[in-house]
Amino acid sequence: MKTLQTLSEQILPAVEDELQRQVGALHEANLAAFADMLTYAMGWSGEGAGPEARGKRIRPLLTLLTCASSGGDWRAALPAAASVELIHNFSLVHDDIQDNSDLRRGRPTVWKLWGVPHAINAGDALFILAHTAVLGLQGSFPAETILSVDRVLNQACLALSSGQFLDMSYEGRLDLSVEDYWPMVAGKTAALLSACSHVGALLGTQDASAVEAYRSFGHALGLAFQVQDDYLGIWGDAALTGKSTSSDLMAGKKSLPVLAGLEKKGAFASRWNQGTPILAGEVTALAEQLAQEGVKLATQEMADQMTDMALQSLREANPAGEAGEALFELTDYLLKREA
Amino acid sequence: MKTLQTLSEQILPAVEDELQRQVGALHEANLAAFADMLTYAMGWSGEGAGPEARGKRIRPLLTLLTCASSGGDWRAALPAAASVELIHNFSLVHDDIQDNSDLRRGRPTVWKLWGVPHAINAGDALFILAHTAVLGLQGSFPAETILSVDRVLNQACLALSSGQFLDMSYEGRLDLSVEDYWPMVAGKTAALLSACSHVGALLGTQDASAVEAYRSFGHALGLAFQVQDDYLGIWGDAALTGKSTSSDLMAGKKSLPVLAGLEKKGAFASRWNQGTPILAGEVTALAEQLAQEGVKLATQEMADQMTDMALQSLREANPAGEAGEALFELTDYLLKREA
Repeated sequence: MKTLQTLSEQILPAVEDELQRQVGALHEANLAAFADMLTYAMGWSGEGAGPEARGKRIRPLLTLLTCASSGGDWRAALPAAASVELIHNFSLVHDDIQDNSDLRRGRPTVWKLWGVPHAINAGDALFILAHTAVLGLQGSFPAETILSVDRVLNQACLALSSGQFLDMSYEGRLDLSVEDYWPMVAGKTAALLSACSHVGALLGTQDASAVEAYRSFGHALGLAFQVQDDYLGIWGDAALTGKSTSSDLMAGKKSLPVLAGLEKKGAFASRWNQGTPILAGEVTALAEQLAQEGVKLATQEMADQMTDMALQSLREANPAGEAGEALFELTDYLLKREA
Repeated sequence: MKTLQTLSEQILPAVEDELQRQVGALHEANLAAFADMLTYAMGWSGEGAGPEARGKRIRPLLTLLTCASSGGDWRAALPAAASVELIHNFSLVHDDIQDNSDLRRGRPTVWKLWGVPHAINAGDALFILAHTAVLGLQGSFPAETILSVDRVLNQACLALSSGQFLDMSYEGRLDLSVEDYWPMVAGKTAALLSACSHVGALLGTQDASAVEAYRSFGHALGLAFQVQDDYLGIWGDAALTGKSTSSDLMAGKKSLPVLAGLEKKGAFASRWNQGTPILAGEVTALAEQLAQEGVKLATQEMADQMTDMALQSLREANPAGEAGEALFELTDYLLKREA
């Protein structure tokens, strides 16, 4: 992790500066309270502001490491990195309303503090700023390249929104299977990560096959990350303690293990299909039941398979230099974490 | 109105086709229910679908007439026209949630039919499609021009969102004056209309002073339209009948006459500042009271002044041909309507 660490220490402060420049577009005195909502959502202001509240900025990091490792100058690509992080935060602000979530990164969500109407509008503003950020590439890249970047980001956003639709439309349905899982996570998680490495490569190289390999790396990385997250959401240490915030079973999340368990039509499926919330006291036994039905092993195998795909695409992309090393380390970090 | 009529009959069906092409991006079978929300919002599907449900498509019309009258080919500019209409509809879907409105163009609002979480997401999707639409200009215009169009649209969206913030932040405030009115309507109404004529001109001419005159025409047109709308919202025939849907007084809207009335600190202000909803039986007397305090005349004068500004800018832009004639007719139609 040494190279990733070293590069992150150079890159992340520059990302933060660029983000602040973009969000600073709202500087009029009568919009100060509006700007407060945006800086709160970005983790810069309000109670609990700081590194924890900002999240890890994985998406800009992925974008810029891809740009650098494919031959580009990551500093010139900063506006694109700011854009993907603003898109991510826009989607979180709206997701939190849609999921009725009270907390985000340990702090009250935007809608909890300012109400739903303002939170919808604050999310919209972050999304608008994400689009404006892209135009900051002008001067450093040809206009045609910027339009290509814009197209990739728009497609990712449409996939994000479609994935969110699928997630919400699964609410209360008892006929779901693993088949319904992939289009949902392809949209909700993989699309934006794929856009990050795709955009980074568009800004780093003109080699179409390298661009495609990076795109495909980001996509597999996103799927692997989500499957791993779903695994930890049931069998991770925190999930097994039965805290409602840690176990996907108690949250009723349609994760891969849950959908795989439903397909088994065994004891797990019977309990889930009762439709009543799963209680803290049930969590350990149900996780064990799923494991006995073969779902734990299958989920781990799926995560490994997706991880292999990600690494294979990354090797095909043949990332150069320290940034390339850091990309392998980032992949390791994202896919081998324990929580 | 003859030229406007003739051109509208050519232009509006082409706009509708282009809009359908953009919204058709969501064609996957598992997204059919999602696409339904968008086509409903556009007025194409669901109960009450049809011309009434679609609205007048003023914004694309303004965009394309500007393009044609400034020397461009309006057919090539159709993607931009689709974009402004999608932006408008995105903002309506979110506004209806924020304002808790049950009806839009005589039909249940999107959130009424599908709930707030889906409506937020449907609005987001329309906004994403608006951005994708702009990229449809590729092939017909230089990439640099498309980026300029994108920049104008982003600025308008940020103003729209800022205006919406101001509107919501005025809720419950008793210290408002006419000074607070202009930044709100500049964002909520004028920004997008100004973007329409600005974008149309960017796609029609390279003459910077003509572009500026068109931009400024759209801005003044938007302000004049809003002031006129505010006038009719209190002294129009429908408003005076005391239907809650027609009178801005009953809706508690911070319109220009209301803010001007509050500044007078007379009988109208006393009643308004009681804070209790204004009832149907009070509407005629309060409208009369405002008129006696000089606000009716002042509002009409303001509408006339803004209209003059719009016409002056339009004359400066020197719009050519039938499309130019139609732009004058459109201005007349928008600013001299009675309702």
